[in-house]
Amino acid sequence: MKDISLIRRFAAFVQKDAAFSLALRTMYFDMSTIAPKKGAEYRSTSLSILSGEAFTHATSKKTIALLEAVSVQEENDFAQEQAKAVLKDLERIRFIPKKQYVAFTKLCSDAENIWEQAREKKDFDMFSPYLHRLIEGTKANVKTRHRIETDYDVLLGDYEPRMTQVEYDRFFNVVKVQLVPFLHRLLTEGTKPDTSFLYKDYPVEKQKQFMETLKEALFLDPKSSYLATSAHPFSSSFSKYDNRITVRYLKDNVTSAIFSLIHEVGHATYNHQIDQKHEGTVFFDNMSMGMHESQSRMMENMLGRNRAFWVNLYPKLVELFPENLSNVDLDAWVGAINAVDPGFIRTEADELTYPLHVLLRYEIERDIFNGTINVKNIEAAWNAKIEDFLGLTVGNSAEGVLQDIHWSSAMFGYFPTYALGSAYSAQWMMAMRKDLDVEALLASNHMDTIKQWLEAKIHRYGGSRKADELLREVSGEPFNPQYYVDYLIAKYSKLYQLD
Amino acid sequence: MKDISLIRRFAAFVQKDAAFSLALRTMYFDMSTIAPKKGAEYRSTSLSILSGEAFTHATSKKTIALLEAVSVQEENDFAQEQAKAVLKDLERIRFIPKKQYVAFTKLCSDAENIWEQAREKKDFDMFSPYLHRLIEGTKANVKTRHRIETDYDVLLGDYEPRMTQVEYDRFFNVVKVQLVPFLHRLLTEGTKPDTSFLYKDYPVEKQKQFMETLKEALFLDPKSSYLATSAHPFSSSFSKYDNRITVRYLKDNVTSAIFSLIHEVGHATYNHQIDQKHEGTVFFDNMSMGMHESQSRMMENMLGRNRAFWVNLYPKLVELFPENLSNVDLDAWVGAINAVDPGFIRTEADELTYPLHVLLRYEIERDIFNGTINVKNIEAAWNAKIEDFLGLTVGNSAEGVLQDIHWSSAMFGYFPTYALGSAYSAQWMMAMRKDLDVEALLASNHMDTIKQWLEAKIHRYGGSRKADELLREVSGEPFNPQYYVDYLIAKYSKLYQLD
Repeated sequence: MKDISLIRRFAAFVQKDAAFSLALRTMYFDMSTIAPKKGAEYRSTSLSILSGEAFTHATSKKTIALLEAVSVQEENDFAQEQAKAVLKDLERIRFIPKKQYVAFTKLCSDAENIWEQAREKKDFDMFSPYLHRLIEGTKANVKTRHRIETDYDVLLGDYEPRMTQVEYDRFFNVVKVQLVPFLHRLLTEGTKPDTSFLYKDYPVEKQKQFMETLKEALFLDPKSSYLATSAHPFSSSFSKYDNRITVRYLKDNVTSAIFSLIHEVGHATYNHQIDQKHEGTVFFDNMSMGMHESQSRMMENMLGRNRAFWVNLYPKLVELFPENLSNVDLDAWVGAINAVDPGFIRTEADELTYPLHVLLRYEIERDIFNGTINVKNIEAAWNAKIEDFLGLTVGNSAEGVLQDIHWSSAMFGYFPTYALGSAYSAQWMMAMRKDLDVEALLASNHMDTIKQWLEAKIHRYGGSRKADELLREVSGEPFNPQYYVDYLIAKYSKLYQLD
Repeated sequence: MKDISLIRRFAAFVQKDAAFSLALRTMYFDMSTIAPKKGAEYRSTSLSILSGEAFTHATSKKTIALLEAVSVQEENDFAQEQAKAVLKDLERIRFIPKKQYVAFTKLCSDAENIWEQAREKKDFDMFSPYLHRLIEGTKANVKTRHRIETDYDVLLGDYEPRMTQVEYDRFFNVVKVQLVPFLHRLLTEGTKPDTSFLYKDYPVEKQKQFMETLKEALFLDPKSSYLATSAHPFSSSFSKYDNRITVRYLKDNVTSAIFSLIHEVGHATYNHQIDQKHEGTVFFDNMSMGMHESQSRMMENMLGRNRAFWVNLYPKLVELFPENLSNVDLDAWVGAINAVDPGFIRTEADELTYPLHVLLRYEIERDIFNGTINVKNIEAAWNAKIEDFLGLTVGNSAEGVLQDIHWSSAMFGYFPTYALGSAYSAQWMMAMRKDLDVEALLASNHMDTIKQWLEAKIHRYGGSRKADELLREVSGEPFNPQYYVDYLIAKYSKLYQLD
């Protein structure tokens, strides 16, 4: 028999959990966009207290007992599924003693501070003792879970369910073996498009005007989204009908804000198109990182950097910046926004070198958790790989090993999903092309039709379906990284006039 | 002996309370400024759940026991004082059964909806049954407190400690007997300044530019404040170093945003100048409504509408709007921004008629809670008083009894503090003038010196000192409304060239 009061108590748990989550997201968004600088310390204290409240609410004995009871309620599939998913998510933290959890949270916060200082001073040795403690702390946290997998497999699975080191090795091998030599060939034999006109004077006010045009072209609903400015672009979904996006404007770079917006709209669209029944539940945003990234990278690169997308849009950009672009035709523009330019910084990387940045971090993380590299040698390993993959010599730690925030927040196992998402998106595109004439739709301002396809095939499920399952269902086969590599090689061979 | 663990537990209670409060303020500010419209329903659910969490945290048996224990800890004055103040604040809600509390909260939320609809339809009868239930609900809540005072005295004291109906009657009598006849004389015998140039075309972008100038003139710290736009101007203090202000811009009214900003900066300055030791405690923002309003009304009217304040500022405004103002000299400007123009809407009232709007609401509230008026007759009473005080005939409920939101949220006893604050501010000015040459400071751009005086004499105490105590200390005598009436009569006699 259905236990009504149990289901009711479960609904109350879910609602409270969602309320904490919304409060924390709102405070984080506020902090990253408009909050006065001097209020940071006070806000930071309150944020950590509320996070602690959310933790207690989610992991108390009473909660766990409730979730366990609901997870065997066979008469209510929807609640049962949710409860199981919440319990799975909670596995990461629920067995950690509160004292250990609080100490680790504090360590992360301290480490982030030190990382910022170390990056400023370009001094990896300053950060490495903290990195060592973060690794040991992470291992201790994983240990509480009594899993038979290796530590790194546990971490990888936290961000991308069902992905393990063996799977990632297979994936990255395909990428590495084919893309590294291809990149070297491209750089020596290919014809690089001119990009100089991208870096002229582009007044921020006019860039902001263009964002409005772009939002329309992307069919971003103005009544359920908001665009702000922050130091680093990000998106945050408050609810199905409230999606926040931020970009930053560089006055001498016209593409930065444009492609950040398109990328973040990819994320926002995913959350906006989730079935209403998942709103406020665990399935609203526990999509894997790879899944989420596949939607933003597809929007940014495969759609947003597509020539067809710019057929109608580019003239509007030229109109805004005639002094810089009136002598640049559509093909020159498309060439420039797709040009390959190996550099030190991952977040500024072009589409082709991007996965190699991620590969580098994956290999180092894997060696760390397999115990085959000493923390002190990470920087040397990093610099050697940058040379091998991109042919560049790292000048200092700030443009090398200290560039990303992730390790200082103990987000080990997260990086590989960035490349995985890009690879997924090539497979989605292959499937989409069977149903839609993508270029014709883009050229006739019909991003809405593409979004409808994504909604029907992928988005509406939210986190209730996993990547491997959906890939098989939508594309007819399991994850196959060859689509990604083929796509990149074909695209760049043409653009760089190889063969 | 000092009980360390008790004090520690108390500090943890205070911090958590402050964290909830900051989360709710951030969400409210976000909602009123930038939040996408379609996200309202989801956010509203989360907001009410978090409010409930804050309620439970503040009123649980465990909390009350803790607060009671700390409130008798004589070895720690600071904690003791705080605990007493928190207990006093909690009296409003802690004896209400949770079921009754939740039902009443729901009633308020429903009533606000109905009020909005009723105002739109200009139909008081639609709202009056809800008003009746709100009054009865409020009486039932007050009853749980077992106080010997009348219901209305309890409510008045909640917003302005130590003020009772007897005190308010004395205050409003001074106002009514002197200001009503004075207003009638002014309107018949005085010379009204020209105000037509205030209502020309004032592009919003340029108004926004002037806000920057104004913020500098008011010495508003850009690193600890933020200005946004909302449907109704308000301010919200997140912490000492994080004060939020909103205004709205009317394109055919140059004064609306200007004086809203000055008013809200008055509130923000109060919170910004509280002693650091009160940050995050109950004393950070439990100042009486009259105290808080005295700071905003002083800033807006006695300083912001002062001729001296505009000596340097006005030319900058003329520079922005030469087409409207180049033929208007400083005195004409000062005359216009101070002109008396009796109207129906309190929030748009001039300085002289404003207290009469408040008087009207006070008299009706008093009659409601003394049981001498039937809810159905409130509209007739309202309309008669508008005619008596301002000589105007109310055309419909929207510009009459339905104009304010307060009663629909059961904020009975709040209105009178608006007039009280203005009256306090006249007494503060009298005291300030003994120490400072206010006009000389304003004319030489030294609002900072005035703010320092306010910090030293009033602001630094936050809510730890009460109005009556501070008035006596700073001005050398108890609250005396005659300063207020004298100030208004002197100011307007001069401006309107009476005698």
